Amino acid sequence: MDYSKIDAQHISYFTEVVGPEFVLSQADLIEPYSKDYTEDLRFYPELVVKPGNTQEVSKIAAYCNTHKIPLTTRGAGTGLSGGSLPVKGGLVLSMERFNKIISIDERNFQATVEPGVINEAFQQAVLAKGLFYPPDPASKGSCFLGGNIAHSSGGPRAVKYGTTRDYVLNLEVVLANGEIILTGANTLKYSTGYNLTHLMIGSEGTLAIVTKIVFKLIPAPKNTLLLLAPFTSPEKACEAVNGIFLAGCTPSACEFVEPDGFRLSSNMLKMNFEIAEDVGAYLLIEVDGNDTELMMKDCERISEVLYSNQAIDVLFAETANQKEYFWKLRRGIGEATKHNNTYKEEDTVVPRAELPVLFKGVKEISARYGFRTVCYGHAGDGNLHVNILKDELSTEFWNTELNQAIVEIFELCKSLNGTISGEHGIGLVQQKYMKVVMPQTNLDLMRAIKLAFDPNEILNPGKIYNA
Amino acid sequence: MDYSKIDAQHISYFTEVVGPEFVLSQADLIEPYSKDYTEDLRFYPELVVKPGNTQEVSKIAAYCNTHKIPLTTRGAGTGLSGGSLPVKGGLVLSMERFNKIISIDERNFQATVEPGVINEAFQQAVLAKGLFYPPDPASKGSCFLGGNIAHSSGGPRAVKYGTTRDYVLNLEVVLANGEIILTGANTLKYSTGYNLTHLMIGSEGTLAIVTKIVFKLIPAPKNTLLLLAPFTSPEKACEAVNGIFLAGCTPSACEFVEPDGFRLSSNMLKMNFEIAEDVGAYLLIEVDGNDTELMMKDCERISEVLYSNQAIDVLFAETANQKEYFWKLRRGIGEATKHNNTYKEEDTVVPRAELPVLFKGVKEISARYGFRTVCYGHAGDGNLHVNILKDELSTEFWNTELNQAIVEIFELCKSLNGTISGEHGIGLVQQKYMKVVMPQTNLDLMRAIKLAFDPNEILNPGKIYNA
Repeated sequence: MDYSKIDAQHISYFTEVVGPEFVLSQADLIEPYSKDYTEDLRFYPELVVKPGNTQEVSKIAAYCNTHKIPLTTRGAGTGLSGGSLPVKGGLVLSMERFNKIISIDERNFQATVEPGVINEAFQQAVLAKGLFYPPDPASKGSCFLGGNIAHSSGGPRAVKYGTTRDYVLNLEVVLANGEIILTGANTLKYSTGYNLTHLMIGSEGTLAIVTKIVFKLIPAPKNTLLLLAPFTSPEKACEAVNGIFLAGCTPSACEFVEPDGFRLSSNMLKMNFEIAEDVGAYLLIEVDGNDTELMMKDCERISEVLYSNQAIDVLFAETANQKEYFWKLRRGIGEATKHNNTYKEEDTVVPRAELPVLFKGVKEISARYGFRTVCYGHAGDGNLHVNILKDELSTEFWNTELNQAIVEIFELCKSLNGTISGEHGIGLVQQKYMKVVMPQTNLDLMRAIKLAFDPNEILNPGKIYNA
Repeated sequence: MDYSKIDAQHISYFTEVVGPEFVLSQADLIEPYSKDYTEDLRFYPELVVKPGNTQEVSKIAAYCNTHKIPLTTRGAGTGLSGGSLPVKGGLVLSMERFNKIISIDERNFQATVEPGVINEAFQQAVLAKGLFYPPDPASKGSCFLGGNIAHSSGGPRAVKYGTTRDYVLNLEVVLANGEIILTGANTLKYSTGYNLTHLMIGSEGTLAIVTKIVFKLIPAPKNTLLLLAPFTSPEKACEAVNGIFLAGCTPSACEFVEPDGFRLSSNMLKMNFEIAEDVGAYLLIEVDGNDTELMMKDCERISEVLYSNQAIDVLFAETANQKEYFWKLRRGIGEATKHNNTYKEEDTVVPRAELPVLFKGVKEISARYGFRTVCYGHAGDGNLHVNILKDELSTEFWNTELNQAIVEIFELCKSLNGTISGEHGIGLVQQKYMKVVMPQTNLDLMRAIKLAFDPNEILNPGKIYNA
């Protein structure tokens, strides 16, 4: 595809549409839009435009489509696969002004929001009305709901409540040619032709631009209980995870953390979390509900499972402060792993009971190739984030041999009926591994769908199936 | 599209692939494949072929694709929108021999099945291992799981557990050109490119032929409680439905039934169900769980809501037999309404709290046009089946003016942010109403997706977006 460069005439059109204060062309102002949370990648857009409403988005898309200008929609830039990076240059469409919660419909347990609303702000707003929006990515304090839709983001609570996908009823989107459509209806069930809503979710801004979201909500559980269990053997910790479900419990979070994860997080956040030498892994397990007695029974059953899998101890967080302490420690791992180090983060996912095999395999592969990994993640979904740290490795190894090791990790996922991304998406950096888990036919189908929506390939080009 | 007629040479190829006993060409043998449960429609295939495995399906599809022979995949033929009818003639691919439960993975709460397995047989098989497959269409005793995927079928339990969509992890499908692919992975989370699995679900056999399904299962709840509440005012019954959810309860079924529904079902099944003259509607409400004490508390709260909405009475089903009696009566309504009458069934769905407005509107429209409706359905999802009965109406009215009335009903759905099908699909008979709820752009996108998968349009032609 031959794209146009943005010239003065283009800039003057965009300026006319959104107003001069919402068009950025100066290098220093554009710089923050050249990166996200993925490794240390940098791709500079030619222009950043910040539309304020759907009509403006429509005009910008139509113009880019006519003039073949790449248009990369950007949320908060907290993505972990480079999905929001403008790899072909062109225009970054920042959705930061789409920050309104339009309505919370308490009668129907629904809310209509703009895609630039921050996940946690939305959670708090609906909670104030007794309602619950479960998806809680680690970046919930800053990530946008639109970005969550782009990747069908999960988070700890997905194990009980599902991912973003499970809470989207309907979307208003702007197509590449500027047309504005609704993808579905605001109903709990929908069997009215192909499900365009589900097709949008996880499509990483390559099919259309989301301008409005109708979410389903559920009644908020009143209480949570939190357990932290250290294990000597990380494999036994992984086995305990599945044991919890086999015992009939469905925790609202079931996180696996290698000691290095908590160590790095504690250091970065100066939290003084003590880690005994014999600890090989932690499980952080939350139970939620309305009936504390029942929840306590669940915790007892879970404790039995943990001890029967050789947990060293099972610590209850007694106070709200303690709970927040553990969660802060957990949420800090992602950033801490990346702090002062070069890294790659893989978002492996397998059926839950295969987690011990995955973990063991990852460690075997990393030992054989000679790199350090810090593994943590949503063990209850079989979703293990494998952080690969560069430490003192050579740049040559990092850029060549390491790829083969990652292929081996993903081949292992595939052999366990898993895949290469559970919640981070493919974006830029995982594209080259797509062929490990699917034949070219699947990628061709994706591209054909893409062309059905965006024949000029202006929307977030260079992602998902282009490697 | 110009399709070929099936000739002797074609028949001899198909016979070679599946064996002579699995190719039907005689009129009397083909007759059962000319209809489904939709109105009194008849469309005869030229040939019925019953493949026994994926390789055979692949060969048949590739051959049909090369020779431009329409290929309509058929499950049990219990569909309510004419989705399995071969409106362009050609070949009906009956999946009845794909009837094996391949494996039930108790460790991962998953099962791999063929699409010709009967819904209820599957439910029973997993229940024997303590696992639960919730989707339960009224036709569960005969419908195939593959058909459930074609329409993302629901059923009473969808209100708590979601529809078929929510339980599909991965699909093996045969594409129009005969290629065999997996659409995803066997994982609880998936963010690995466009979600082809979700795109398949609800696509009514127009994009590919499902040959294997990986389902997610959940632990089976141990108990159910069942309430039946008659109301004088059907509008108050509708209002009570939303009240139950606002009171913080999530029943495992919340069904609305007009007295005519139970009357017809009781007559057909000779069940002697007595209906007092002042009854305007019933709610049939199920609560499930493991803790009977908690469930009883829920039932008490629900009863309070029902009485505060002027329920005449709240009857508890005391025994398993009584529960089965009420459910049998409920499941019989669909068939009973159609028994000895010509009918059309509309699958209206709106946000739950709008149900009273929808019901009132439907009755106003039917009164104005002068036809009888029997309304029943999954009120907890806002999904109301509107059965329109021909009774003594003229065929002219039935074929002309009635369409306008149906348009009015669907316009009402649309104005309430609802749509024209919650779980029955669009198939053949609802296509002409698609434009009531979506612009031509959405239909064009669907057709473009179709062409990306099936450029020769051989798979189930004449459905969804062709009117």
